[in-house]
Parts: sequence; C-alpha cells; structure tokens
Amino acid sequence: MNASLPPITGAGTGPASALHHVDSQLEASLERLFALLRIPSISTQLEHAPDCRRAAEWLRDDLQSLGFQASVRDTPGLPIVVAHDRSASAAVEGAPHVLFYGHYDVQPVDPLDLWTNPPFEPVLIDAPAVDGVTPDRWITARGASDDKGQVMTFLEALRAIRAADGSYPLRISILLEGEEESGGPSLRPFLEAHADELRADYALICDTDMLGDHTPAITTMLRGLVGEEIIITCADRDLHSGLYGNAARNPLHLLVEILASLRDAEGRVTLPGFYDDVAPLPPSVKASWERIGFSDAELLGPIGLSIPAGEAGDSALEQTWARPTCEINGITGGYGGEGFKTVLPGKASAKVSFRMVSGQNPEAVRDAFRAHVRSRIPADCSVAFRSHGCSRASSLPIDSASLRAALGALGEEWGTEAAVVGSGGSIPVVRDLQEALGMDSLLIGFARNDNRIHSPNEKYDLSSFHRGTRSWVRVLYALAAGAPEGTPTSV
Amino acid sequence: MNASLPPITGAGTGPASALHHVDSQLEASLERLFALLRIPSISTQLEHAPDCRRAAEWLRDDLQSLGFQASVRDTPGLPIVVAHDRSASAAVEGAPHVLFYGHYDVQPVDPLDLWTNPPFEPVLIDAPAVDGVTPDRWITARGASDDKGQVMTFLEALRAIRAADGSYPLRISILLEGEEESGGPSLRPFLEAHADELRADYALICDTDMLGDHTPAITTMLRGLVGEEIIITCADRDLHSGLYGNAARNPLHLLVEILASLRDAEGRVTLPGFYDDVAPLPPSVKASWERIGFSDAELLGPIGLSIPAGEAGDSALEQTWARPTCEINGITGGYGGEGFKTVLPGKASAKVSFRMVSGQNPEAVRDAFRAHVRSRIPADCSVAFRSHGCSRASSLPIDSASLRAALGALGEEWGTEAAVVGSGGSIPVVRDLQEALGMDSLLIGFARNDNRIHSPNEKYDLSSFHRGTRSWVRVLYALAAGAPEGTPTSV
Repeated sequence: MNASLPPITGAGTGPASALHHVDSQLEASLERLFALLRIPSISTQLEHAPDCRRAAEWLRDDLQSLGFQASVRDTPGLPIVVAHDRSASAAVEGAPHVLFYGHYDVQPVDPLDLWTNPPFEPVLIDAPAVDGVTPDRWITARGASDDKGQVMTFLEALRAIRAADGSYPLRISILLEGEEESGGPSLRPFLEAHADELRADYALICDTDMLGDHTPAITTMLRGLVGEEIIITCADRDLHSGLYGNAARNPLHLLVEILASLRDAEGRVTLPGFYDDVAPLPPSVKASWERIGFSDAELLGPIGLSIPAGEAGDSALEQTWARPTCEINGITGGYGGEGFKTVLPGKASAKVSFRMVSGQNPEAVRDAFRAHVRSRIPADCSVAFRSHGCSRASSLPIDSASLRAALGALGEEWGTEAAVVGSGGSIPVVRDLQEALGMDSLLIGFARNDNRIHSPNEKYDLSSFHRGTRSWVRVLYALAAGAPEGTPTSV
Repeated sequence: MNASLPPITGAGTGPASALHHVDSQLEASLERLFALLRIPSISTQLEHAPDCRRAAEWLRDDLQSLGFQASVRDTPGLPIVVAHDRSASAAVEGAPHVLFYGHYDVQPVDPLDLWTNPPFEPVLIDAPAVDGVTPDRWITARGASDDKGQVMTFLEALRAIRAADGSYPLRISILLEGEEESGGPSLRPFLEAHADELRADYALICDTDMLGDHTPAITTMLRGLVGEEIIITCADRDLHSGLYGNAARNPLHLLVEILASLRDAEGRVTLPGFYDDVAPLPPSVKASWERIGFSDAELLGPIGLSIPAGEAGDSALEQTWARPTCEINGITGGYGGEGFKTVLPGKASAKVSFRMVSGQNPEAVRDAFRAHVRSRIPADCSVAFRSHGCSRASSLPIDSASLRAALGALGEEWGTEAAVVGSGGSIPVVRDLQEALGMDSLLIGFARNDNRIHSPNEKYDLSSFHRGTRSWVRVLYALAAGAPEGTPTSV
C-alpha cells in the first residue's frame, strides 16, 4: 500500500517524520482500534452503560499515554472524556488552540442475524474485487466508521507526531462524548458549565464523509432537524373493518392523507412559509459542486436507485446537501403481522422529520406542521404530538484561513483538490459549540458513503484509517503554520 | 333473569320443554362454552395450528354426545368438523334439511396488554351499571362472540331439544371450519368435493349481530371483500434519512400518496369504474331501515365517534350495510419503537381491504387497485402484491317461507318484531354455499355491535348466549313446522 502514497515533502518539525511513523506503525494502530471496537458501547441501551464507561476509560488511558491530562467526567447520563496537552513547546507560540470532538458511543446492532461477523469482534477483510483487483481492505465492526475509527485517526496522528517530534505543533484539547447516537441531553449543559476550560480557537470534528472514494472533503453545511411524532385517535378501540368500515373514521386514512399532503407532486414541502427563509445556494458553491461532478448515479446507484426524489431540477447532491425536506421515518397502525386482519384501528401514529437548511427556523417549521395536522383532524377525533428534536441548520465560514490551510493539507495527502461540501445529516454538536462556546468547527472526515453506518456490517476502509491518520498529521502541521497567503479554496 | 323471559307457548313436541331445559341448564352450558374458549385456536398464526385441531376435536366430541355422526376432516389447511344427525324421527318427515355453519377459529389477540383478563381465560363479569342497574353480564374472552359463543348457542339449543324430545324436529347437518378469520383457502374446495354429502335445503349461519340490544335480526345483505397487501421497495437497504433524505425515494411517501389517493374528499373510492355496478338501495329496504330508526349516534356513539366518515348524505347505517368502501387495515414501515430513529426505510407495506356490495366484481376491483398502485411506482422502485381474499357480496332472498318462519320465531322470543338487515362484514361462506352447493343461507346471530370482536376484551352478553340458545330452539321448531301463511316480514 505504501507504494501508492504521495511523496513526503517538508523537513524539520514538518510532517515527514511523523508520516513515516504512521506508515511503520500501522499494524499497532489497528490493534488499538480493534481493542476499542471490542467494547460494545451502545448508548441507547441501558444495559450497555458500563460498556460506555469502559470505552471512556480506555480513551482516557490512551490519551494519558499521549501526554495528555485526561479524565473521565461524570454527567447525568454517560461520561465525557476531556483531555488537554499542557506540555510547553516553543512551536506552540502563536499557533492556534484546537478542540477535537468525537464520540465513543455506537448505534444498536439489530438485526443481528444480518451481520457476517459479530459486530463487536472486529475483522479485517478484503473488499470485493473490482476487475480482479482487491481495491482496499475493510475494518468491519459496529463503530468502525461511526465514530471510533474516525476518532482513532486523530489519536494515531497525535501518537506519530509525538513519536517524531516529542511534542505537538499547536495547543490541543480533546472532548469525546458518549451520547451522540442517543441524542442524549448531557453534552450541551457540560459545554456551558465548562466553557472556560473547553473554549479554543476552533473545533476539529472527525465524523463526516469524503466525497466518493478519492476526494477528501471538509463539510461546511449541515441540515437542521425537527423530529415529530403524531398519534391520531378516532374510535376508542380497534373495530371490525367490515362492520364499521366507511362509517367509522379510520385513523390510518387520516394519517396517509395528512402525510401525503406534506409534499406536492414536484417534491416540494407544502407547509406555508416553509421556503420563505431558504436562501439560494451561493453561485460559487453551486459552481464548485458542478466541478465535483458527483453524479446522481454515483449517489443513488449504490443503494439501488436512479431517480432523485426531491424537487425537480435539483441534483441529488443539492437535494441532500442544500435543500430542506420532509421524511416519514415510520408509520404504526393496524395489523402488521403475517396474513390479514380486517381491523379498523382506533389509533395510528407516524414519526416525521424535517431537515432544514440555513435560515429556516425550526420552531416555526414545527408550529406550521402541527397546525397543518390539526386542521385535518375531524371534530370527533384527536391528535397528540411528541417532539423528538428541534435544531437549526449550521453553515460554517467558507473563507477562513484555517479552512484554507486544512484544504491544502488534505490535497497534498490525497493528491487531488479537496472539496468543500454539505451534508444532509445533522451534527448537533456543531450548533452546540457555536452557541455555548462561540466556536466554529472544521468537519474533516474520511468515511465513505457505503460504510453502512447504523446498519449491519458497518465498515471503515483501511485506506480511510491509514490515510485519514496521515491526513491529520498534515492538517495539524498546516494549522500550526497557518494558511499560506492567497491559497485558493475549492469554493 | 328468567323473570324477564316471555311466556312459553306451544305443547307436545313444541319448544316449551326444551326452553325450560335451556333455562335450567344455563350454568352447564356456560361451562362448556368456557372450555371451548380456553383453546387458543388462532388460525392466522402457524404456531396455533395444534390448538385449532384441538378445538375441532372438542367440537366433534361434543357433537357425538348430541347423537351426531361427527368427524374431523383434514384439509390442506386447518381441519373442518362435519356432523350429521342420522337418527330417524317421525317428525322429520316433510321437514326441511338444514346445514348449520360456524367457525371455531379466532382472531389474534394483540395488543395483549390492553386485555383486562387474559384472552383465553374466559370470565363472566358484570356489564357497567346504567342508572344503578347492571343491565347484563359479559362473557369476556377471544372468540366469546366471534364465533364460539354464537356456535354454542346452536349446539346448546340442540342439547335442550334432544333432552326434551329425544330427537330433532328436522334433519340437521353441521359444518364448522377453522379458516374463517384467516381467509384460508380450504373451505371452498371442501364444499365442492363433498357437495352431495353437504347439500341441504338451506343453511343456518350464526355469525351476525342483532339490531341494537333488543331487536333480533336476520341479515340478508353482506358486503364482499377484496383483501390486498402491497409491499413497496425503493432503496435496497434502510438509509440514514439525513444523509439521503430528499434524494432517495421514501417508500412510506409512495405508500401514503397511493393510499390517500384511494378516496376523495367526499369519501368516495376513486378507482375507475368502482361504482359502475353498484345498484341503488331498493326503496322498500331503504324505507324499512328508516323505520328501524337506528341513528348515526347509536352506531357511532358507543365507539366514541359522531361524524359518519363515508359518502356525504348517506347515514352511517347505509354506509356500512349498503355502500362499498376501502379501508386501510395496517401500515408497516420504518421505525415504530420508542423514541426516534432517523431511518429512511428501504421497504414499506400496507394491508388494504375493499368492501363491496351486490353487483360489484371483486376481480375487477382488485385489478383496478393493482393498476392504480403500479401507475404510481417510479421506474427505479418496485411493488409486490399479496392477495388476502377476493369474494363477492351476497344478497339473499327476502321473501322466502323459511325467512318468514324464522322472523316469527325470533319475534316470539324477544317480544318485538324481528328486523331484516344488512351487514358491512363479509361472510364468504354465504357466497361459497350459493356457488358450490346452490344453497341460500339464513343469517341469524345474537351478537351486539359493542362486542369488540377482533379487539381486546371481546365479549358476548350472557343474554345473547342464553336467549340466543332459546331463539334457536324456537327457530328450529318453526322451520320444522313451516311458515304460517301470509306471515308478514319486516321488509
């Protein structure tokens, strides 16, 4: 694999020595990652709370071995690992102070029978051959990509830098939480309570994707989320659909009428005012995405689809990165088992989410949604709502020196211009860091979009891990040195 | 309770002695019903197949104790109980030969946690008091009403007649099936293969309701049923709704759009040609239903509703008895558990049923439905269909001598004119008996419309069981004697 790596340039306290260290110590790095992956730190399942603590303690110990003052901090929920590098170094004078963020918790593993290997017994397997050539190897385990593998690219980069130089070229703090996958409430109050300790010049977050397999990317646009559950009640019991059908209101009919009316035939969300505060995509960003040339087929083909489902005329990339939407995440009502039951249910419910882009007010979207639903409930029926999240979209500065420096470093490692991209998903910590600490974030990740995060057989390419680690080495030296004057960005 | 029963008239081989026997043996009758109710004969769940056979064997044994030649017959599905009374009796000369039909299978019991008592541990409880008086007692169990309780009214009537007279006043055959609730395929071929054995002058079926709590009823109109399951596949896996939402087609969106489009804002089914063969209600029937004066509030009030959901202008009674409809019986897709999961599912499915009235062709309705669905599936998605029944509506003669005789007997027992009514439900056996054996059916049942059949806490009023049994005693003697000349019907 080393044969395909780009030549190492630079000298002195630059990345060369550390990059050599990354390459030569890859096997030991993998062993450490596997040890972390073996801990079933599922944050949504109470019985795994001790495993979550074990993962936090494992990371604390590893950070202490890297010279950090690291501790496991209790919260009302799952613990948070905080670490600071307090070693004095001449190189740090004038360099920025960065806060690295990641999460040690993972998603549940069901359905377990779809896993080829047990989810907490990590293995390294050959990726399927293409034209007779095995293009990569896969680290397969729950959390391999989201987010343990990505977190460890950063820690292994630190280890290599420390081995090469004895210290780090900039001030580094680290925050690793355990409630990212559960939407837990502990992080935000923790940030607010420890603002002075945690505030840095900006944050580095490793929880995002590359663009395809070969183009490194920094994510600057994240959609916000409004999650809503609606429960419609008609009759006070389940009925026989033959005896009552037609005369008794069917909550599933109300539900499908309401849900179908949320989007029009062109895929646009119909809530009044929904698009009022949606700004058009800046022409420079639109142009750069066209240059990226990531086609609808490249996004949709791997999941078995070909026709973008959103607003007519927008590419699949724009639809997921830059356009708001409404998705139905689940419907429950009536009989779902084998065979048939002629039931006319008394209740039916649905989970619905809105993804919002910069400018949209999530509270206003939620209010408009609830008013839309209520207006369609007949007088003899009722509806109840449960909120499952309400967060704004994030839009990060696309012209900062740190962004330019990081893009340059990534381009050097991957041998191709790095891209500035959007992401359809929400990463609430970005908004939390902005609001609680006044900090922007650089979102740099090495996951691929076929990593099956949240699904069985989650994987992380060995190249993501190896070159991701190398990328952080280059990025950290570049951030320490500052961006060269006039370095162009890809935007 | 006996104090409120009407005086017994008639003598000799008339009903008087048998009615006394019904009253004095009520407790033993209940014990037998409870024994049958304890068998969890759920036909839609494979693991209960042995229980279904146990129920069939229990009924065979009971029928043998009543002097019948009874046997459990194997089918490709669940067994069928067939019994014949071969005892010679002078009274039978010239009397009709009747085939009694019922079913021993029951509906599933989920959601189990809504049952006050375990569904297969029958109990007798006081009905809620009205003005300080307990109006009745309730037999509570799955199948109490549908159909074990109703079947046992007939068998207990036979027991009383046999105890009183030593034989039956007419020739009786009995057929009890086990796939009524599952729409199973075994009955029709069985009827055809044993047509000579099973053919009688007409059938008696006890699987229908009274009209309100006090008016006995014979049902002459039954809606047909087309049961369909549709499974829509979009992406080849579940996706993260943030990363793919908007661009990846959501099968739940397709499903709600398709299902919502099946009925218009006035409640009419939108399938092309759906109403072409629907005849208007005969004026005599419409007039008799207006005389019945069963208001929307009386039908909908007890289930917590007040506004008829079907076609504007039709009463709730007409909507359920005489108008076709489409109901959604279940939707499955995405995440239905506690909390929220931002999943964009790869598949979603729904169970849909059409209730049809006389004149409508179920195959044509099914074809129109499938074409409607297919026309709304994008080229990169797919849909599969499963059929769960396809039966025509039934309309029975309303002027026969046997109908008049039965109406007269019911009127005597209940002290009020018996009604000829329609029913929203489908009883496919009525059509099967007509087509396979050339037989009409008399549908006489004692269920109340608040019996919660197919729902948790299914019940059968003790008065339904007791006076239902007494009603069959009177009806059987009346059918044996023939209808009085010129007896008016209520139509």
